[in-house]
Amino acid sequence: MSISADQVKKLREITGVGLMECKGALAEANGDLDQAVTILRKKGLASLAKKAGRATKEGLIGSYVHNGKIGVLVEVNCESDFVARNSEFQTLVKDIAMHIAASDPRFVRREDVTEDVLAKEREIYKEQARATGKPDNILDKMVEGRMSKFYAETCLLEQPFVRDPNVTIKDHIAIHIQKIGENIQVRRFTRYKLGD
Amino acid sequence: MSISADQVKKLREITGVGLMECKGALAEANGDLDQAVTILRKKGLASLAKKAGRATKEGLIGSYVHNGKIGVLVEVNCESDFVARNSEFQTLVKDIAMHIAASDPRFVRREDVTEDVLAKEREIYKEQARATGKPDNILDKMVEGRMSKFYAETCLLEQPFVRDPNVTIKDHIAIHIQKIGENIQVRRFTRYKLGD
Repeated sequence: MSISADQVKKLREITGVGLMECKGALAEANGDLDQAVTILRKKGLASLAKKAGRATKEGLIGSYVHNGKIGVLVEVNCESDFVARNSEFQTLVKDIAMHIAASDPRFVRREDVTEDVLAKEREIYKEQARATGKPDNILDKMVEGRMSKFYAETCLLEQPFVRDPNVTIKDHIAIHIQKIGENIQVRRFTRYKLGD
Repeated sequence: MSISADQVKKLREITGVGLMECKGALAEANGDLDQAVTILRKKGLASLAKKAGRATKEGLIGSYVHNGKIGVLVEVNCESDFVARNSEFQTLVKDIAMHIAASDPRFVRREDVTEDVLAKEREIYKEQARATGKPDNILDKMVEGRMSKFYAETCLLEQPFVRDPNVTIKDHIAIHIQKIGENIQVRRFTRYKLGD
Protein backbone atom coordinates (compact mmCIF):
# COMPACT_ATOMS: atom_id res chain seq x y z
CA MET A 1 0.00 0.00 0.00
CA SER A 2 1.52 3.32 -1.02
CA ILE A 3 0.88 6.35 1.16
CA SER A 4 0.41 9.61 -0.73
CA ALA A 5 2.09 12.85 0.28
CA ASP A 6 -1.37 14.39 0.52
CA GLN A 7 -2.50 11.85 3.11
CA VAL A 8 0.63 12.45 5.17
CA LYS A 9 0.08 16.20 4.96
CA LYS A 10 -3.53 15.82 6.18
CA LEU A 11 -2.55 13.55 9.05
CA ARG A 12 0.09 16.08 10.09
CA GLU A 13 -2.50 18.87 9.95
CA ILE A 14 -4.92 16.88 12.07
CA THR A 15 -2.46 15.67 14.68
CA GLY A 16 0.46 18.08 14.61
CA VAL A 17 2.76 15.05 14.70
CA GLY A 18 6.07 14.76 12.77
CA LEU A 19 6.49 13.45 9.23
CA MET A 20 7.98 10.03 9.95
CA GLU A 21 5.49 9.14 12.68
CA CYS A 22 2.62 10.10 10.36
CA LYS A 23 4.00 7.96 7.52
CA GLY A 24 4.38 5.02 9.89
CA ALA A 25 0.87 5.39 11.29
CA LEU A 26 -0.67 5.60 7.81
CA ALA A 27 1.22 2.48 6.71
CA GLU A 28 0.04 0.65 9.83
CA ALA A 29 -3.55 1.80 9.11
CA ASN A 30 -3.38 0.80 5.43
CA GLY A 31 -3.95 4.42 4.45
CA ASP A 32 -7.05 4.94 6.60
CA LEU A 33 -6.81 8.49 7.96
CA ASP A 34 -9.15 8.06 10.93
CA GLN A 35 -7.40 4.89 12.02
CA ALA A 36 -3.98 6.56 11.65
CA VAL A 37 -5.19 9.35 13.98
CA THR A 38 -6.24 6.71 16.52
CA ILE A 39 -2.85 4.99 16.28
CA LEU A 40 -1.04 8.26 16.94
CA ARG A 41 -3.36 9.05 19.84
CA LYS A 42 -2.74 5.66 21.42
CA LYS A 43 1.00 6.31 21.19
CA GLY A 44 0.37 9.55 23.06
CA LEU A 45 1.70 11.57 20.12
CA ALA A 46 -1.49 13.32 19.01
CA SER A 47 -2.80 16.05 21.26
CA LEU A 48 -6.22 16.02 19.66
CA ALA A 49 -7.92 13.88 22.28
CA LYS A 50 -7.23 16.43 24.97
CA LYS A 51 -8.79 19.26 22.96
CA ALA A 52 -11.68 17.04 21.93
CA GLY A 53 -12.73 16.71 25.57
CA ARG A 54 -12.92 20.43 26.27
CA ALA A 55 -16.25 22.20 26.73
CA THR A 56 -17.65 24.09 23.74
CA LYS A 57 -20.17 26.73 24.74
CA GLU A 58 -19.50 29.38 22.14
CA GLY A 59 -19.69 29.16 18.38
CA LEU A 60 -21.78 30.18 15.43
CA ILE A 61 -25.14 29.54 13.85
CA GLY A 62 -24.50 29.25 10.12
CA SER A 63 -26.87 29.02 7.20
CA TYR A 64 -26.69 28.19 3.53
CA VAL A 65 -29.49 28.43 0.98
CA HIS A 66 -29.03 26.91 -2.45
CA ASN A 67 -31.08 28.63 -5.14
CA GLY A 68 -33.96 29.24 -2.71
CA LYS A 69 -34.84 25.53 -2.87
CA ILE A 70 -32.57 23.88 -0.31
CA GLY A 71 -31.74 25.50 3.00
CA VAL A 72 -29.52 24.53 5.91
CA LEU A 73 -29.16 25.81 9.45
CA VAL A 74 -26.24 24.51 11.49
CA GLU A 75 -24.82 25.15 14.95
CA VAL A 76 -21.08 24.68 15.31
CA ASN A 77 -19.59 25.16 18.76
CA CYS A 78 -16.10 26.17 19.85
CA GLU A 79 -14.61 27.17 23.18
CA SER A 80 -14.38 30.95 22.97
CA ASP A 81 -16.25 33.80 21.33
CA PHE A 82 -12.84 34.96 20.09
CA VAL A 83 -12.56 31.88 17.89
CA ALA A 84 -16.22 32.15 16.85
CA ARG A 85 -15.36 35.54 15.34
CA ASN A 86 -12.26 34.17 13.59
CA SER A 87 -12.68 34.12 9.81
CA GLU A 88 -11.22 30.61 9.48
CA PHE A 89 -13.86 29.27 11.88
CA GLN A 90 -16.58 31.18 10.01
CA THR A 91 -15.44 29.64 6.73
CA LEU A 92 -15.52 26.19 8.35
CA VAL A 93 -19.15 26.76 9.47
CA LYS A 94 -20.14 27.99 6.01
CA ASP A 95 -18.43 24.97 4.40
CA ILE A 96 -20.24 22.55 6.72
CA ALA A 97 -23.61 24.20 5.95
CA MET A 98 -22.86 24.00 2.22
CA HIS A 99 -21.80 20.37 2.58
CA ILE A 100 -25.06 19.49 4.37
CA ALA A 101 -27.06 21.13 1.56
CA ALA A 102 -25.21 19.02 -1.01
CA SER A 103 -24.87 15.70 0.83
CA ASP A 104 -28.13 15.50 2.77
CA PRO A 105 -26.95 13.71 5.94
CA ARG A 106 -29.64 12.49 8.34
CA PHE A 107 -27.63 12.58 11.59
CA VAL A 108 -24.62 14.43 12.99
CA ARG A 109 -22.81 11.31 14.28
CA ARG A 110 -23.41 7.58 14.37
CA GLU A 111 -24.44 7.79 18.05
CA ASP A 112 -27.41 9.88 16.91
CA VAL A 113 -28.86 7.18 14.64
CA THR A 114 -32.08 6.11 16.33
CA GLU A 115 -32.53 2.50 17.46
CA ASP A 116 -35.46 1.80 15.14
CA VAL A 117 -33.56 3.09 12.10
CA LEU A 118 -30.57 0.94 13.06
CA ALA A 119 -32.68 -2.17 13.61
CA LYS A 120 -34.44 -1.70 10.27
CA GLU A 121 -31.20 -1.22 8.32
CA ARG A 122 -29.56 -4.19 10.02
CA GLU A 123 -32.57 -6.37 9.20
CA ILE A 124 -32.45 -5.39 5.52
CA TYR A 125 -28.71 -6.09 5.29
CA LYS A 126 -29.16 -9.42 7.07
CA GLU A 127 -31.81 -10.48 4.56
CA GLN A 128 -29.59 -9.42 1.67
CA ALA A 129 -26.62 -11.30 3.15
CA ARG A 130 -28.68 -14.45 3.79
CA ALA A 131 -29.83 -14.42 0.17
CA THR A 132 -26.21 -14.95 -0.89
CA GLY A 133 -26.20 -18.36 0.85
CA LYS A 134 -22.76 -17.77 2.37
CA PRO A 135 -21.74 -19.17 5.79
CA ASP A 136 -22.82 -17.38 8.97
CA ASN A 137 -19.42 -15.96 9.94
CA ILE A 138 -19.19 -14.30 6.50
CA LEU A 139 -22.76 -12.96 6.78
CA ASP A 140 -21.94 -11.03 9.96
CA LYS A 141 -19.00 -9.39 8.26
CA MET A 142 -21.15 -8.51 5.25
CA VAL A 143 -23.71 -6.88 7.53
CA GLU A 144 -21.03 -4.93 9.38
CA GLY A 145 -19.58 -3.78 6.06
CA ARG A 146 -22.97 -2.51 4.92
CA MET A 147 -23.56 -0.78 8.27
CA SER A 148 -20.24 1.09 7.89
CA LYS A 149 -21.37 2.21 4.47
CA PHE A 150 -24.72 3.27 5.92
CA TYR A 151 -22.99 5.44 8.53
CA ALA A 152 -20.71 6.96 5.90
CA GLU A 153 -23.76 7.84 3.82
CA THR A 154 -26.07 9.17 6.53
CA CYS A 155 -23.85 10.63 9.29
CA LEU A 156 -22.46 14.10 8.63
CA LEU A 157 -19.14 13.50 10.41
CA GLU A 158 -18.42 10.34 8.41
CA GLN A 159 -19.38 11.71 5.00
CA PRO A 160 -16.63 12.61 2.54
CA PHE A 161 -16.39 16.42 2.47
CA VAL A 162 -17.88 17.61 -0.85
CA ARG A 163 -15.12 20.14 -1.42
CA ASP A 164 -12.37 17.58 -0.74
CA PRO A 165 -13.66 13.99 -0.85
CA ASN A 166 -10.30 12.65 0.40
CA VAL A 167 -11.21 13.72 3.92
CA THR A 168 -14.33 13.12 5.98
CA ILE A 169 -16.10 16.04 7.66
CA LYS A 170 -14.65 14.73 10.93
CA ASP A 171 -11.13 15.00 9.47
CA HIS A 172 -11.86 18.42 8.03
CA ILE A 173 -12.97 19.59 11.50
CA ALA A 174 -9.95 17.90 13.11
CA ILE A 175 -7.64 19.91 10.84
CA HIS A 176 -9.31 23.08 12.12
CA ILE A 177 -9.11 21.95 15.76
CA GLN A 178 -5.37 21.55 15.27
CA LYS A 179 -4.98 24.83 13.38
CA ILE A 180 -7.19 26.97 15.62
CA GLY A 181 -6.29 25.25 18.87
CA GLU A 182 -9.80 24.86 20.24
CA ASN A 183 -12.22 21.97 20.39
CA ILE A 184 -14.91 22.26 17.68
CA GLN A 185 -18.21 20.35 17.66
CA VAL A 186 -21.13 20.24 15.25
CA ARG A 187 -24.09 20.36 17.62
CA ARG A 188 -27.13 20.16 15.32
CA PHE A 189 -28.40 20.94 11.86
CA THR A 190 -31.68 21.28 10.00
CA ARG A 191 -32.07 20.88 6.25
CA TYR A 192 -35.16 21.96 4.30
CA LYS A 193 -35.87 20.96 0.75
CA LEU A 194 -38.72 22.89 -0.85
CA GLY A 195 -41.91 20.83 -0.74
CA ASP A 196 -40.34 17.88 1.11
CA MET B 1 -64.33 53.78 18.51
CA SER B 2 -62.43 55.79 15.92
CA ILE B 3 -61.01 53.96 12.91
CA SER B 4 -57.64 55.23 11.71
CA ALA B 5 -56.86 55.88 8.06
CA ASP B 6 -53.96 53.44 8.40
CA GLN B 7 -56.27 50.60 9.48
CA VAL B 8 -58.58 51.29 6.55
CA LYS B 9 -55.60 51.30 4.18
CA LYS B 10 -54.40 47.94 5.51
CA LEU B 11 -57.83 46.37 5.26
CA ARG B 12 -58.09 47.60 1.68
CA GLU B 13 -54.66 46.11 0.90
CA ILE B 14 -55.65 42.79 2.39
CA THR B 15 -59.08 42.50 0.82
CA GLY B 16 -59.03 44.72 -2.25
CA VAL B 17 -62.44 46.02 -1.14
CA GLY B 18 -63.61 49.67 -1.46
CA LEU B 19 -63.08 52.43 1.09
CA MET B 20 -66.60 52.70 2.51
CA GLU B 21 -67.08 48.95 2.94
CA CYS B 22 -63.73 48.74 4.72
CA LYS B 23 -64.63 51.58 7.10
CA GLY B 24 -67.94 49.92 7.84
CA ALA B 25 -66.39 46.53 8.49
CA LEU B 26 -63.75 48.01 10.80
CA ALA B 27 -66.43 49.89 12.76
CA GLU B 28 -68.46 46.68 13.07
CA ALA B 29 -65.33 44.82 14.24
CA ASN B 30 -64.39 47.55 16.74
CA GLY B 31 -61.14 48.13 14.86
CA ASP B 32 -60.04 44.48 14.86
CA LEU B 33 -58.39 43.90 11.49
CA ASP B 34 -58.74 40.11 11.36
CA GLN B 35 -62.39 40.30 12.34
CA ALA B 36 -63.01 43.00 9.70
CA VAL B 37 -61.51 40.68 7.06
CA THR B 38 -63.89 37.94 8.17
CA ILE B 39 -66.88 40.32 7.99
CA LEU B 40 -65.98 41.31 4.42
CA ARG B 41 -65.49 37.67 3.47
CA LYS B 42 -68.89 36.73 4.85
CA LYS B 43 -70.43 39.50 2.77
CA GLY B 44 -68.75 37.94 -0.25
CA LEU B 45 -66.75 41.11 -0.86
CA ALA B 46 -63.26 39.85 -0.11
CA SER B 47 -61.71 37.53 -2.65
CA LEU B 48 -59.04 36.34 -0.25
CA ALA B 49 -60.77 33.12 0.78
CA LYS B 50 -60.70 31.81 -2.77
CA LYS B 51 -56.96 32.38 -3.12
CA ALA B 52 -56.35 31.01 0.36
CA GLY B 53 -57.67 27.63 -0.74
CA ARG B 54 -55.36 27.22 -3.71
CA ALA B 55 -52.49 24.73 -3.68
CA THR B 56 -49.01 26.06 -2.89
CA LYS B 57 -46.27 23.81 -4.15
CA GLU B 58 -43.62 26.31 -5.10
CA GLY B 59 -41.89 28.89 -2.93
CA LEU B 60 -38.67 29.68 -1.20
CA ILE B 61 -36.48 28.48 1.62
CA GLY B 62 -35.29 31.61 3.41
CA SER B 63 -32.76 32.09 6.17
CA TYR B 64 -31.72 34.83 8.53
CA VAL B 65 -28.80 34.78 10.96
CA HIS B 66 -28.50 37.48 13.58
CA ASN B 67 -24.94 38.16 14.64
CA GLY B 68 -24.04 34.46 14.31
CA LYS B 69 -25.98 33.72 17.51
CA ILE B 70 -29.59 33.31 16.35
CA GLY B 71 -30.48 31.57 13.11
CA VAL B 72 -33.74 30.92 11.31
CA LEU B 73 -34.72 28.67 8.43
CA VAL B 74 -38.20 29.11 6.97
CA GLU B 75 -40.17 27.61 4.09
CA VAL B 76 -42.77 29.88 2.51
CA ASN B 77 -44.89 28.43 -0.27
CA CYS B 78 -46.65 30.10 -3.17
CA GLU B 79 -48.35 28.76 -6.29
CA SER B 80 -45.80 29.34 -9.03
CA ASP B 81 -42.04 29.43 -9.41
CA PHE B 82 -42.56 32.75 -11.20
CA VAL B 83 -43.82 34.34 -7.97
CA ALA B 84 -41.10 32.59 -5.95
CA ARG B 85 -38.55 34.52 -8.03
CA ASN B 86 -40.41 37.81 -7.60
CA SER B 87 -38.45 40.28 -5.45
CA GLU B 88 -41.52 41.26 -3.43
CA PHE B 89 -42.06 37.63 -2.45
CA GLN B 90 -38.38 37.25 -1.62
CA THR B 91 -38.54 40.31 0.64
CA LEU B 92 -41.60 38.84 2.36
CA VAL B 93 -39.71 35.59 3.06
CA LYS B 94 -36.69 37.50 4.39
CA ASP B 95 -38.97 39.64 6.59
CA ILE B 96 -40.68 36.57 8.02
CA ALA B 97 -37.31 34.92 8.77
CA MET B 98 -36.13 38.13 10.46
CA HIS B 99 -39.39 38.34 12.42
CA ILE B 100 -38.98 34.75 13.67
CA ALA B 101 -35.43 35.53 14.83
CA ALA B 102 -36.72 38.53 16.80
CA SER B 103 -40.05 37.22 18.12
CA ASP B 104 -39.25 33.55 18.80
CA PRO B 105 -42.62 31.94 17.94
CA ARG B 106 -43.06 28.29 18.87
CA PHE B 107 -45.64 27.29 16.23
CA VAL B 108 -46.72 28.46 12.78
CA ARG B 109 -50.46 28.56 13.55
CA ARG B 110 -52.73 27.81 16.50
CA GLU B 111 -53.71 24.47 14.97
CA ASP B 112 -50.08 23.42 15.41
CA VAL B 113 -50.07 23.90 19.20
CA THR B 114 -49.79 20.39 20.63
CA GLU B 115 -52.53 19.03 22.88
CA ASP B 116 -50.28 18.68 25.94
CA VAL B 117 -49.04 22.28 25.65
CA LEU B 118 -52.65 23.48 25.34
CA ALA B 119 -53.85 21.43 28.31
CA LYS B 120 -50.99 22.68 30.46
CA GLU B 121 -51.57 26.36 29.57
CA ARG B 122 -55.31 26.05 30.12
CA GLU B 123 -54.72 24.45 33.53
CA ILE B 124 -52.39 27.28 34.62
CA TYR B 125 -54.87 29.95 33.50
CA LYS B 126 -57.73 28.14 35.24
CA GLU B 127 -55.78 28.10 38.50
CA GLN B 128 -54.97 31.78 38.13
CA ALA B 129 -58.61 32.60 37.37
CA ARG B 130 -59.88 30.54 40.31
CA ALA B 131 -57.53 32.40 42.65
CA THR B 132 -59.44 35.62 41.89
CA GLY B 133 -62.55 34.13 43.50
CA LYS B 134 -64.81 35.41 40.69
CA PRO B 135 -67.96 33.55 39.52
CA ASP B 136 -67.61 30.61 37.11
CA ASN B 137 -69.01 32.33 34.01
CA ILE B 138 -66.38 35.07 34.43
CA LEU B 139 -63.61 32.51 34.98
CA ASP B 140 -64.22 30.87 31.59
CA LYS B 141 -63.96 34.23 29.88
CA MET B 142 -60.74 35.00 31.75
CA VAL B 143 -59.25 31.68 30.63
CA GLU B 144 -60.28 32.28 27.01
CA GLY B 145 -58.76 35.77 27.17
CA ARG B 146 -55.48 34.35 28.41
CA MET B 147 -55.53 31.64 25.73
CA SER B 148 -55.92 34.29 23.01
CA LYS B 149 -52.93 36.09 24.47
CA PHE B 150 -51.00 32.80 24.52
CA TYR B 151 -51.71 32.24 20.80
CA ALA B 152 -50.71 35.81 19.98
CA GLU B 153 -47.43 35.28 21.80
CA THR B 154 -46.50 31.83 20.54
CA CYS B 155 -48.02 31.43 17.05
CA LEU B 156 -46.12 33.09 14.21
CA LEU B 157 -49.22 34.02 12.21
CA GLU B 158 -50.85 35.77 15.18
CA GLN B 159 -47.79 37.66 16.36
CA PRO B 160 -47.56 41.40 15.68
CA PHE B 161 -45.07 41.86 12.83
CA VAL B 162 -41.88 43.33 14.35
CA ARG B 163 -41.42 45.83 11.53
CA ASP B 164 -45.03 47.04 11.75
CA PRO B 165 -46.71 45.99 15.01
CA ASN B 166 -50.09 47.28 13.78
CA VAL B 167 -50.50 44.16 11.64
CA THR B 168 -50.10 40.50 12.49
CA ILE B 169 -47.90 38.28 10.34
CA LYS B 170 -51.14 36.81 8.98
CA ASP B 171 -52.25 40.29 7.86
CA HIS B 172 -48.82 41.05 6.45
CA ILE B 173 -49.02 37.87 4.37
CA ALA B 174 -52.63 38.65 3.37
CA ILE B 175 -51.50 42.01 1.99
CA HIS B 176 -48.98 40.15 -0.18
CA ILE B 177 -51.57 37.59 -1.29
CA GLN B 178 -53.72 40.47 -2.49
CA LYS B 179 -50.82 42.31 -4.09
CA ILE B 180 -49.16 39.33 -5.77
CA GLY B 181 -52.35 37.46 -6.58
CA GLU B 182 -51.29 34.03 -5.36
CA ASN B 183 -51.96 32.07 -2.21
CA ILE B 184 -48.98 32.22 0.21
CA GLN B 185 -48.42 29.85 3.14
CA VAL B 186 -45.74 29.59 5.79
CA ARG B 187 -45.11 25.87 5.90
CA ARG B 188 -42.47 25.43 8.61
CA PHE B 189 -39.61 27.12 10.39
CA THR B 190 -36.66 26.26 12.62
CA ARG B 191 -34.98 28.69 14.98
CA TYR B 192 -31.61 28.05 16.63
CA LYS B 193 -30.24 30.09 19.48
CA LEU B 194 -26.57 29.42 20.20
CA GLY B 195 -26.24 27.03 23.15
CA ASP B 196 -30.00 26.57 23.58
